[in-house]
Amino acid sequence: MKKVIYIFGLVTLLSVVISCSSTPGNTNEDNNEVSENVEKADPLPSWNEGASKTAIINYINDVTNTDSENFIPLSERIATFDNDGNLWSEQPMYFQLFFAIDRIKALAPQHPEWKTEQPFKAVLDNDIKDLAKQGEHGIIKLVMASHAGNTTDEFEAIVKDWLATAKHPRFNRPYTDLVFQPMLELLDYLRDKDFKTFIVSGGGIEFMRPWVEEVYGIPRDQVIGSTIKTEFVNEDGNAVINRLAELDFIDDKAGKPVGIYRFIGRRPVFASGNSDGDLQMMQYTASNTFKSFMLYVHHTDSVREWAYDRESHIGRLDKGLDEAIEKGWTVIDMKNDWKVIYPFELRELEH
Amino acid sequence: MKKVIYIFGLVTLLSVVISCSSTPGNTNEDNNEVSENVEKADPLPSWNEGASKTAIINYINDVTNTDSENFIPLSERIATFDNDGNLWSEQPMYFQLFFAIDRIKALAPQHPEWKTEQPFKAVLDNDIKDLAKQGEHGIIKLVMASHAGNTTDEFEAIVKDWLATAKHPRFNRPYTDLVFQPMLELLDYLRDKDFKTFIVSGGGIEFMRPWVEEVYGIPRDQVIGSTIKTEFVNEDGNAVINRLAELDFIDDKAGKPVGIYRFIGRRPVFASGNSDGDLQMMQYTASNTFKSFMLYVHHTDSVREWAYDRESHIGRLDKGLDEAIEKGWTVIDMKNDWKVIYPFELRELEH
Repeated sequence: MKKVIYIFGLVTLLSVVISCSSTPGNTNEDNNEVSENVEKADPLPSWNEGASKTAIINYINDVTNTDSENFIPLSERIATFDNDGNLWSEQPMYFQLFFAIDRIKALAPQHPEWKTEQPFKAVLDNDIKDLAKQGEHGIIKLVMASHAGNTTDEFEAIVKDWLATAKHPRFNRPYTDLVFQPMLELLDYLRDKDFKTFIVSGGGIEFMRPWVEEVYGIPRDQVIGSTIKTEFVNEDGNAVINRLAELDFIDDKAGKPVGIYRFIGRRPVFASGNSDGDLQMMQYTASNTFKSFMLYVHHTDSVREWAYDRESHIGRLDKGLDEAIEKGWTVIDMKNDWKVIYPFELRELEH
Repeated sequence: MKKVIYIFGLVTLLSVVISCSSTPGNTNEDNNEVSENVEKADPLPSWNEGASKTAIINYINDVTNTDSENFIPLSERIATFDNDGNLWSEQPMYFQLFFAIDRIKALAPQHPEWKTEQPFKAVLDNDIKDLAKQGEHGIIKLVMASHAGNTTDEFEAIVKDWLATAKHPRFNRPYTDLVFQPMLELLDYLRDKDFKTFIVSGGGIEFMRPWVEEVYGIPRDQVIGSTIKTEFVNEDGNAVINRLAELDFIDDKAGKPVGIYRFIGRRPVFASGNSDGDLQMMQYTASNTFKSFMLYVHHTDSVREWAYDRESHIGRLDKGLDEAIEKGWTVIDMKNDWKVIYPFELRELEH
């Protein structure tokens, strides 16, 4: 049951103080045409020149060059990306946990018993310390109450509604604004070179699918994540799938290669993650007989994003960092390698 | 446990007499250019003119026409195909069961105990009646002994080796020669119109993936099927996935929509199958808010293929046929709707 906690963040992370600060500045999105010519010449315009950018470009040039001994055929060009902390931020807690808490509050009027029943009481009282005391059993109850008990169509509508209205406490922006601009460029670059891009996340698969297509350009069927069980019901020609309050698969740590094999059926040649939860995916990718590329995002920017690694309760990067250094994998230094973190900074720069 | 049997065929089907007859005729594959111009004009050249062909073409023209009220956006163009009996033959027993039996025989020298241990004894003695007596427990033992206990890389090599050497008892041809030419054309036609084509089969996912890309043009990650459990192991940088002797998921009947939702994340708009095991997939597809198309292959050709439906132990089509008639779904009459069944017939015709 220990793994369960991962999906929606460690209980202890609830005690993290949420720092709230709205971001000033111009949010006008109309003028995106500046420097378009420069962008066409450089596949990674939001990346500073340096070892990380050079390593990525050299790798892609090499393996897509038909004259190279490292050439990779099209069908083998599989690139897998962790989501939380790798394609978007994950602080002060996994965004899916914000969703779960908001969902419990929205459902509370239909559940008067929650006023006195844990872990719901703690959520409704905004009592983080009390919630932290509820332990794994409490977290599982929270997840099931917020993610199950509806049809898949209903759940998708709920996620979309939440994303359209909820705002991140620090940036006062929709959560989908907090994706990493340099990683969006990397995804595009890989696809331009005929790589098939996948998400491989510990997060809930159905929490991601409603928005990743639009935000990352990754189709729903290329999203791998943790799942709860479902059942098909057909009543009078109304065929639906119900979401059950039972865990099915945890797509984290050793679960990631298992999920990749189940959904994709071959080893990736390119993998990107930011935590120890991605290490087994990296090892699986490193064992490919084709030349492969392992990329770790190291959160080093305490000003524009967050700085954390070996001691963090969320997205801990400790063993993964050791192995990356030992094996010579590429480690992105967020502070120095990335010109901007979020797309809205890019738009501000362009003014 | 009842469902388990489906994967590799009902025990009783083992008692079906295998009719052996090699196919005479010219198998020269060099001359594929005949009638190329005609083929370009007609997306389904191996289909006779008639209600089935017309219904398919009219549907695809309608939903891909931007001026139509039934227009379907690209990302929603999901087409799902059953495999056994729908894209290739499944008689006199599921081809995967031939594989399992051959595999047991190949492994027998390493297992002297099998000479006296059931169900292996029955397989090694070629005693179909005795094998049929072993029941579900026997079938599960057979499946696990033939499909688990190796790495995923090893299993893939085993399947490829088998396909390269094994021959179907009636046609004396590789099993992958027994795919349906009209369905290959339908797959191509749908992809030309920007549909994403998936296999959704009760068969083993890892039994299909090594060959479907080449044979059907369907990438591995677009194959959904039944699975056994696996585990990731990394020893001294050698990262492998081991196949365990434990069932994970049965992708049949109500499992098909569940598998579709898990892997694809949206309802299909086009579904094709041939048995009652596909009925729930059809119902799920029929409930799409976009205009959808449900296609049943009815095995009516006892000369060129096999004729069977309501009473068959393999690929029984009974409730599905009733519902197709009631709902006005398209039912292919194999004998009359298809000019040829297999690609090798087409090559013979061209001479």
